[in-house]
Amino acid sequence: MNAGLSSGGQANIELEVRSIAERARAAAHAVVAAPAGARSLALKGIARAMRVNAQKLIDANRIDLERATAAGLDQPLVDRLKIDQRAIDRMIEGVLQVDTLPDSVGEISDLRTLPSGIQVGRMRVPLGVIGIIYESRPNVTVDAAVLCLKSGNACILRGGSECPESNRAIAACISEGLEGTGIPLDAVQLIATTDRAAVGALLKQDGLVDVIIPRGGKSLIERVMRESTIPVIKHLDGVCHVFIDDSADADMAVNVAVNSKTEKYAVCNAIETLLIHRARAAELLPRLAAEYTAAGVELRGCESSRTIVPTMNVATEEDWSAEYLGPILAVRVVEDVSAAINHINRYSSQHTDCIVTSDLSASRRFVNEVDSASVMVNVSTQFADGFEYGLGAEIGISTNKLHARGPVGLEGLTTQKFVVYGQGEVRKR
Amino acid sequence: MNAGLSSGGQANIELEVRSIAERARAAAHAVVAAPAGARSLALKGIARAMRVNAQKLIDANRIDLERATAAGLDQPLVDRLKIDQRAIDRMIEGVLQVDTLPDSVGEISDLRTLPSGIQVGRMRVPLGVIGIIYESRPNVTVDAAVLCLKSGNACILRGGSECPESNRAIAACISEGLEGTGIPLDAVQLIATTDRAAVGALLKQDGLVDVIIPRGGKSLIERVMRESTIPVIKHLDGVCHVFIDDSADADMAVNVAVNSKTEKYAVCNAIETLLIHRARAAELLPRLAAEYTAAGVELRGCESSRTIVPTMNVATEEDWSAEYLGPILAVRVVEDVSAAINHINRYSSQHTDCIVTSDLSASRRFVNEVDSASVMVNVSTQFADGFEYGLGAEIGISTNKLHARGPVGLEGLTTQKFVVYGQGEVRKR
Repeated sequence: MNAGLSSGGQANIELEVRSIAERARAAAHAVVAAPAGARSLALKGIARAMRVNAQKLIDANRIDLERATAAGLDQPLVDRLKIDQRAIDRMIEGVLQVDTLPDSVGEISDLRTLPSGIQVGRMRVPLGVIGIIYESRPNVTVDAAVLCLKSGNACILRGGSECPESNRAIAACISEGLEGTGIPLDAVQLIATTDRAAVGALLKQDGLVDVIIPRGGKSLIERVMRESTIPVIKHLDGVCHVFIDDSADADMAVNVAVNSKTEKYAVCNAIETLLIHRARAAELLPRLAAEYTAAGVELRGCESSRTIVPTMNVATEEDWSAEYLGPILAVRVVEDVSAAINHINRYSSQHTDCIVTSDLSASRRFVNEVDSASVMVNVSTQFADGFEYGLGAEIGISTNKLHARGPVGLEGLTTQKFVVYGQGEVRKR
Repeated sequence: MNAGLSSGGQANIELEVRSIAERARAAAHAVVAAPAGARSLALKGIARAMRVNAQKLIDANRIDLERATAAGLDQPLVDRLKIDQRAIDRMIEGVLQVDTLPDSVGEISDLRTLPSGIQVGRMRVPLGVIGIIYESRPNVTVDAAVLCLKSGNACILRGGSECPESNRAIAACISEGLEGTGIPLDAVQLIATTDRAAVGALLKQDGLVDVIIPRGGKSLIERVMRESTIPVIKHLDGVCHVFIDDSADADMAVNVAVNSKTEKYAVCNAIETLLIHRARAAELLPRLAAEYTAAGVELRGCESSRTIVPTMNVATEEDWSAEYLGPILAVRVVEDVSAAINHINRYSSQHTDCIVTSDLSASRRFVNEVDSASVMVNVSTQFADGFEYGLGAEIGISTNKLHARGPVGLEGLTTQKFVVYGQGEVRKR
C-alpha cells in the first residue's frame, strides 16, 4: 500500500491522482495474474501486521483525537474515531473473517454447448479498480481494502479528513501485509492529502477506475453522483416502512414495528413511516403510541391516526419522504394493502420495506409489487444488512437498481464475463 | 402503445416527455401487478396485429422511403429502412420467439434460512422503465418493445428520424396487441416527434426512467453518456482481437482469423487487429495476407510483420485503437502470450478477444487475464452475439462492466431484490 499526496497545488493533485489511478490499473492486472493463494496470504499478512503494530496504530490515532478535540469536534464524534486495543482486535477479526469467506473469483457458471458447437459460460471476475471515498471512522480503511483484495480488485482509498494519521498507520500495516505475497503494494493505495480537490480528481479517472463507492452522509453521496464520470455504487436514502395489514398478529405487529424503529435510530434500515390498515388502527395505534412514546419517539400522524391518538403531532406532506435518522416517526392509516403499496412505491427510497400479515395473498402482492431492494414479511427492517443476510461482510447497502442492489457483499465487487471455447468454429450467416 | 409529441416548442417538449415518463412509471407498476399470462397474451396480440395490418405497415414505410430518397439519403441506407412482407414476417417470427423464451421474472433463488431464523432469497424483477434511443431501422421498435414487455418492463421508445411513419404504424400494432390484455397501453410509448430536444429531455427523467439503452453510432452513444443523469447500458466500441499463439493449429488459425474479420465488416464483433506470435509469423503471415488480400482487406502491419509481408501498409500507433468497421486490418507480431494480453488490455475496447492455441496453460492465462466482455478460445469473434450464446434474443452488446456485460438478453433487462420472510423476528444488537 502506498500513501502519497501530502502536498502540492490543484494541478499537482490532479497529476498525482492520475498517477495513482494508473498504478492501480496496472496493479489490478497483477492481482488477477497473481498465483492462487496470494490474496489469502495478503489478508493473513495484514491481520498479522495490525497485531504487531497495535501500539503504533494507537499512537497515530491519539494525534488525530487530540486534533479533533482541539478543533472543537463534538465528543460523540471524537469517540467514533477512537482506536483502542479492542477496536484493533475487532478489525483483525474482521480481516480474518473475510479471509474465510468462499472465493468465487474465476468461477465459471452456466457452461453450455450451443448448436454451433461452441461452449459458452460466464466467469466471475473482479471489477478492476475500485475507488472508495469515505468519512470519519478509520476502520473503513482496512475493511474496504480487504473486501477489495478478497474479490481480486485493486482499490484507491480516500479517507475522512478527521483521521489522516490513523489512516496512514493502517495503510502502513496493509503494505507490510502485502509484502512478499506476489500482490503489488499498488493494489491498495491511500490518497493521504486532506485537500478536497483530490476527490474531484479521482471522480474523473474513467478508463482507469471502474467504479466509485462513496460511504458517508448525503452531501458526500450527492457530490459524488454529480461529479463522477465513473459508475457509482451508492447508498442515498433509507426511507423505510412497516405496513401492518388487517390480518396481522397483534403482538408480532407491535414488536416488529417498534424494533424496526427503536433498535437503532441513526441507521439506514430504521423505519421512518409506519403504515397501518384502517381496520386495525383503533386497536393497535394506542398500544404502539404508548411503546414509541415510552422509548422517546416523537410521532407525527395523519388526520385519521390523530383522531385515535390525538397526542400525535401533525404529519405534513414532507414527512412522508423525510429520513429522520432519529427518534421521529410518521404514522399513516391506509385503506388496504393496495394503498400501502402505492404509498411505499411513491415515497419510499426503495431501500427496505416490510409487511406484517398472516394473509398469504397480501404477502405475495406486497413482495411482488413493492419495488425496493429488500422486501420483507414479518421481520424487523433492521435485519437489512450484509451479515444478517449471510453475505459474510458488506461494503455498504446499495439503493441502485443496476448491478448491486441492497446489501453489497463480495459478489457486488465482481462482474461476469463470457468465456467461449471452441475447436475452430467459424460463423456463416 | 401511445404515440405522442407531434408538435410544440422546447418547453412543451420537456413537459410532454415528463408526462410520458410519469405514465410509463405508473404503467411499470401495472405490468408487475398484471395477472399471470398477460405479458404472453400481449406478445401474441402484437404478432397478430402485425400480421393483420401488414399492408398498413408497408404503406407507411413507403412514405418514409420516398422522403429518405428525396432527402438524398444513400441507396444502401434507404434499403436498410425498407419494410416488405418478408421483413414483416421476420419481425412477427421474432415476437413469437421471444414469447417462447423462459420467463424468469418473479423467480426466487438462493432462499436460505439464516441463524436468526429469517429466510433470505433473491427475486428476479423488472428494472421498471427502460428508455431506448435508436437510429434508423424500424424493426427495433417492435424488437425492443417485446423484449421490454417480456421482461416485465415499461418502455419509452425514441426512434430514428428517417422512419417516423413506419415507427408510428408499428406502434399502432403494438397498441392493438396490448388491448384487452390487462397491460396498459402506456407500457409501450413512442416519442414520435423528430425534434432532438426530446432526447435531451428523456435523458433527464431520473426518478422516473430506470435505465437508458442507446442503439446507434458512436456519436449518439457519446451524447447519451454525456447528457444522461440515468444509468446507461451502452455499446461503445468494438475493437476486437485474434491472437495466434505459437502452439496454434495452422489451418484453424487461418480460418478463425479470416472469418473473424471477413464474415461481416460493419459489425462490432469483427476484429480490427490481428496479433501473431513471433515464432509463427514467417510461416502464417504470407498465407493470411493472401487470404485477406483476396477478400479485399487492406493490411496495416508493424515493422516485424512488414519484413515478412512487405506489401502491407505501415501501421501507426493510432491503428492499434482504431475501429475500422470496414475492410482494414492492423497486424502486429508479439513476443508471447504475455505481450498479447498486455496489448489487448491496453488497446482493446473490452468487447471480444480470442486466442487460437493448442496449449492449455496459454488458453487459461488468456481467459483469466484478458479483461473483456467475451474472451474466446479457438472460435471466430463473430460468434459474440445473444442468439449464438443461447440467450434467445438480445437488446444489444454491452461494453459496460457493471450490471450487463456482453450480449444483453432478457436477464440484462431485469434486476434482483432481496426477499426476507420471518415469523416476527426482531433484531437485538
